[in-house]
Amino acid sequence: MLGILGGEDRCPIARSLDVLGEKWTLMIVRDALAGTTRFSEFQASLGVPRDVLASRLDTLVDGGVLVRRPYKPDTGRTRDEYILTEAGQELSLVLLALGDWANRNRPSSESPTLEFVESGTGRRLRPAAVVGDRVVPTADIAVRPRDR
Amino acid sequence: MLGILGGEDRCPIARSLDVLGEKWTLMIVRDALAGTTRFSEFQASLGVPRDVLASRLDTLVDGGVLVRRPYKPDTGRTRDEYILTEAGQELSLVLLALGDWANRNRPSSESPTLEFVESGTGRRLRPAAVVGDRVVPTADIAVRPRDR
Repeated sequence: MLGILGGEDRCPIARSLDVLGEKWTLMIVRDALAGTTRFSEFQASLGVPRDVLASRLDTLVDGGVLVRRPYKPDTGRTRDEYILTEAGQELSLVLLALGDWANRNRPSSESPTLEFVESGTGRRLRPAAVVGDRVVPTADIAVRPRDR
Repeated sequence: MLGILGGEDRCPIARSLDVLGEKWTLMIVRDALAGTTRFSEFQASLGVPRDVLASRLDTLVDGGVLVRRPYKPDTGRTRDEYILTEAGQELSLVLLALGDWANRNRPSSESPTLEFVESGTGRRLRPAAVVGDRVVPTADIAVRPRDR
């Protein structure tokens, strides 16, 4: 499905999911936001087959979420690591909303491994819809057709 | 992948994607938020094969996002329509964040078909991370390992 609709789909949610609409892709972004950059680290964290991981990393590079940067390990040949672009960093809002939704609606007996905090204060974040700097209650979020 | 990890995955993002990690699933939620309830309407909007749509609707019912409710059309037999649960309504924050991300990072020459607005005022919404009622700049969102 990736890329068939390209960048010209009218629905921005569809355009996001052209890059992100698959479980491992967003799990890679999650790990990247937490500081992971190397293929072997992504693989160890996710337990995903190498070919699947390589394919999903390609998707994220093509979609402008990650960029490749060469590095030289202590031993062996030069390799690529994967760095979030500014667009990739901005996915933190999407993952914050996804994680918060599951914490409230699909609770687990296990504690989360990661948390989203304000960098200056360490205070836990929650997702919200806002108008300007005013937080709008979730119950007041409406979705309506937009005039062309 | 759906359901294999069940509700016991430690990562809440993974638990969300057990239900939502596939393009059509979130497109169905988008249409449901905009008021679509009937199989034929989802199919006309999404252009997805009937068997795929039926499977994704089952996933969303099993995941507590939609409930089935019988209705009697003007002609023909009683059918089910699909109504968002409270958990399903709360996905508006996830879709708001996804749509906003694509509007900024994957722009299109086409106008969006839907918009997210505050129900009382009609003002356009944007997603944010907040602490209490204070909006935190996206650049200050940090993801860190959580102590077990």
